[in-house]
Amino acid sequence: MTFAALPNPPYYAVIFTARLAEDADGYAEMAARMEELARTMPGYLGIESARNEDGFGITVSYWQSEEAIANWKQNAEHLVAQHTGRAKWYEDYKLNIAKVERAYEMKK
Amino acid sequence: MTFAALPNPPYYAVIFTARLAEDADGYAEMAARMEELARTMPGYLGIESARNEDGFGITVSYWQSEEAIANWKQNAEHLVAQHTGRAKWYEDYKLNIAKVERAYEMKK
Repeated sequence: MTFAALPNPPYYAVIFTARLAEDADGYAEMAARMEELARTMPGYLGIESARNEDGFGITVSYWQSEEAIANWKQNAEHLVAQHTGRAKWYEDYKLNIAKVERAYEMKK
Repeated sequence: MTFAALPNPPYYAVIFTARLAEDADGYAEMAARMEELARTMPGYLGIESARNEDGFGITVSYWQSEEAIANWKQNAEHLVAQHTGRAKWYEDYKLNIAKVERAYEMKK
């Protein structure tokens, strides 16, 4: 995983925090496929993801607009993944949809 | 790590993505102390954190207002941690400050 290359704000972030179920068979393949698919969507800016060994993870995807987020949410293949996620992969999850107003970075 | 218990939006999120340097001695102690300190700050709502084995991590802290974020940024002990982080612990980092407009959750 690496940093998303982002434009200057404003843009939107979808903060997805989730705990994986003990039996998360197929999760890694789905996550990789969803990242691949998201990259092809209009208004996609980038994605960042980290997961603890205990299964608690945070994925932040960045989008140009709320319309781009709504469009991604309704993508047919993504809808199947969301359904399977709720039914099988995730113990619980939370979504925060936010407008990024300021950004800073430090590089060495 | 567990989920932050959050009020209904709007509130603010500070999305901090960072890669640790190879020598990150003292980092874990500082991170634990900063979390403990943040909890005592006015307007603090919660914190969530995840880190990959390769050192790439995401920490999201949630705040009632931009003023609460500015106040936390200027806390004296936090300023020392920020300085040491730039000098020693972090290879690179990025901060996104965002206004959370909508939130959803799923629990089993």
